[in-house]
Amino acid sequence: MVQAVAPNLVAAVSEARQWDRLMEMAAIGAIPGDSPEDRGVNRPCLSPEDRQARRLIIGWAEQIGLAVSVDQLGNLFFRHEGTEAGAAPVVSGSHMDSQPKGGRFDGIYGVIAAFEAVQALREAGVATRRPIEVVAWTNEEGGRFAPGCMGSMAYAGYAPPNTWDGIRDNAGISWADALAEHQAAEADITRRPLGVVEGQTPHAYVEAHIEQGPVLEQKGLDVGVVTGIQGSRWFSVEIRGRSDHAGTTPLSVRRDAMQDAIRAITALNTLMRDPTDVLRFTVARMEVFPNASNSVADLVRFSIDFRHPDNAVLQARGNAIEGVIQAALTTCTATLSERFHATPAQFAPLVTDAVQRAAEAQGLGWLRMPSGAFHDAQFMVPLCPTGMIFVPCRNGVSHNPAEYSTAPQLAAGTRVLAQVLAELANG
Amino acid sequence: MVQAVAPNLVAAVSEARQWDRLMEMAAIGAIPGDSPEDRGVNRPCLSPEDRQARRLIIGWAEQIGLAVSVDQLGNLFFRHEGTEAGAAPVVSGSHMDSQPKGGRFDGIYGVIAAFEAVQALREAGVATRRPIEVVAWTNEEGGRFAPGCMGSMAYAGYAPPNTWDGIRDNAGISWADALAEHQAAEADITRRPLGVVEGQTPHAYVEAHIEQGPVLEQKGLDVGVVTGIQGSRWFSVEIRGRSDHAGTTPLSVRRDAMQDAIRAITALNTLMRDPTDVLRFTVARMEVFPNASNSVADLVRFSIDFRHPDNAVLQARGNAIEGVIQAALTTCTATLSERFHATPAQFAPLVTDAVQRAAEAQGLGWLRMPSGAFHDAQFMVPLCPTGMIFVPCRNGVSHNPAEYSTAPQLAAGTRVLAQVLAELANG
Repeated sequence: MVQAVAPNLVAAVSEARQWDRLMEMAAIGAIPGDSPEDRGVNRPCLSPEDRQARRLIIGWAEQIGLAVSVDQLGNLFFRHEGTEAGAAPVVSGSHMDSQPKGGRFDGIYGVIAAFEAVQALREAGVATRRPIEVVAWTNEEGGRFAPGCMGSMAYAGYAPPNTWDGIRDNAGISWADALAEHQAAEADITRRPLGVVEGQTPHAYVEAHIEQGPVLEQKGLDVGVVTGIQGSRWFSVEIRGRSDHAGTTPLSVRRDAMQDAIRAITALNTLMRDPTDVLRFTVARMEVFPNASNSVADLVRFSIDFRHPDNAVLQARGNAIEGVIQAALTTCTATLSERFHATPAQFAPLVTDAVQRAAEAQGLGWLRMPSGAFHDAQFMVPLCPTGMIFVPCRNGVSHNPAEYSTAPQLAAGTRVLAQVLAELANG
Repeated sequence: MVQAVAPNLVAAVSEARQWDRLMEMAAIGAIPGDSPEDRGVNRPCLSPEDRQARRLIIGWAEQIGLAVSVDQLGNLFFRHEGTEAGAAPVVSGSHMDSQPKGGRFDGIYGVIAAFEAVQALREAGVATRRPIEVVAWTNEEGGRFAPGCMGSMAYAGYAPPNTWDGIRDNAGISWADALAEHQAAEADITRRPLGVVEGQTPHAYVEAHIEQGPVLEQKGLDVGVVTGIQGSRWFSVEIRGRSDHAGTTPLSVRRDAMQDAIRAITALNTLMRDPTDVLRFTVARMEVFPNASNSVADLVRFSIDFRHPDNAVLQARGNAIEGVIQAALTTCTATLSERFHATPAQFAPLVTDAVQRAAEAQGLGWLRMPSGAFHDAQFMVPLCPTGMIFVPCRNGVSHNPAEYSTAPQLAAGTRVLAQVLAELANG
């Protein structure tokens, strides 16, 4: 095991090359901003912009001799060969899709960092026993097609690969149709088996990511040694009433879906009250029908995003949601469906200790911390020793064009990742 | 003045022809239903369906020899000549556009009824001193482009004809562009001056319409003698916050536009409380941005539709809306804009008395009543003696595919209209 600093390797990580690649990626789906530090990205999964970004990194992989392959969910792999034939690979990466008003670092940093780490290994002449695979998972964000993490869930066998075929985006396009169109556009790329479902189990998985929270920046630290991920439950709620003329229909006889939706969300706010401010409860998506100002709404759909690191809280309050909604309604009916359910995940000491050791060996400030956001890494936990590396981001802001980390902050995380990958790939 | 029943004229009104025309119109933009009495219409203004409906009635007008013309707002006219050259016309009609999930009678009945009344006059050989113009006003509903009544407002000089050029529909199309496309499609039709703005002042205006409320049906009456229209104020509200990651951002530091919108609407519900159930307060349109379940909303737009027959209440509570919203916000900012403001309107005895006399003469059950909905007639009030005729509709339901009136109910209203038009056009 590599316990000390690997100076050649660390020096081979190029801060400038990594930053330039991130900025080149950020131009694809760019959202103009007021300053160079306030420019976001809108790159929905399986969109033309997503495919353009994937072609860009495929080009870089071909330049440095990595083997490119793609599985049936569109998960994209770049393989650096090890010295021992048949050894299980170390996998590292993240995702390339963004939120509709997303930033330039969420996800894409983890892909570019793994790519940079592998390139540095190769340039530094550091051989590894095991192969290293850089991965870009499909649809982590769930911004266009909910839920997120479809690619990693299918890879991990968490759900059959056709689970989401009927899910539609805001334009009415089904996941199945979008994926088929995407596969046709990437028909020239080598098809590989689908993860554990088709016999590919990694030796370990490591994901670098911006923190998406304020802790590292506030404490002046370089690296988060991520110990696990809080649990998430996503729900979709439909409130059904009756559409009537807004001018003639007395309020006493209406079945107004908007008013009952507001009552339901207000009641959920009470259910989700948490003086410790650890619980995360968000209603951020709503669709109203017919959505005309003078026709009473007959249908309101809204989303619930509920997260907590303690599984007991996650289960108890999550299971209470339906009853609270039903009790809040006055004249309408409601149906609730759970779209996503991930219990809190604990990362493996094999990886978390390697991250901590590398940070210490490189003289960086580090902190063991849980992740507030979910990540593809969550679904790797049952498969293999898994961990994550966080880097600071300005004001903790993410899922926003103002999301920002500096080139040195990002390079520090990648140097740790390079050392961890070298260690795990020789373990 | 024609004070008694005009038997030839009343007999010439064809219940079957009128019903068949309404059903032929209802096929354009039809919404399938479970039964013949539960089939709606989606015919947005200036849509291909709207134009198809207009071509249908233009064809009928040409068959019976009415002169067809259109003004710069797309208001469509069919003129029956009177015996005295230069006499101001009696105008009667309504609108042909529908709500997105609208019924088969709202608006279109008033156009077809006026057309049927004029055809009956001609077939019965009843000459009139004044011309009679059947009108189909553009965009009464405001379902695609808010506010409604653009055509009649422009005709009446209530607002300059280019007032709404920048208004956009849900697809981002501007009113100016939609109107230009429409005018090009109707370039073959004779262009006429724009109402009072360009020198055309009617002698009187009469509009037939379904009640859109439950009163006539509940009382077993045939005809509503409409005495006026309650006032309406429409507002558009924007709540601006900040988008953040739903998993990592503590609730205590969010600026969640959805939560502040809910607080604002809840506070408005309190402002608008009315034990007499006369006040109408409706929030029926909402748009959320970025509308992704795991990104806190940074912008919520919603509509307010507020109506009351008492101008003092309309002004006092309407003017209190902005302060109530501002007081309800916790972390976001709000802007309010008033999109539409119509004070309560009183109809003229010349018309209301003529409607009542005709109903009595024809042996029908009638009731003097205000209108809960607004109508194009509202904007004719300052121009000329104005009135409306209501017919019952099932359960008072409107702006809904289940909207329904029977062929005999509709024909009774048209017989009254025919007699009123004959009387006014000889007055």
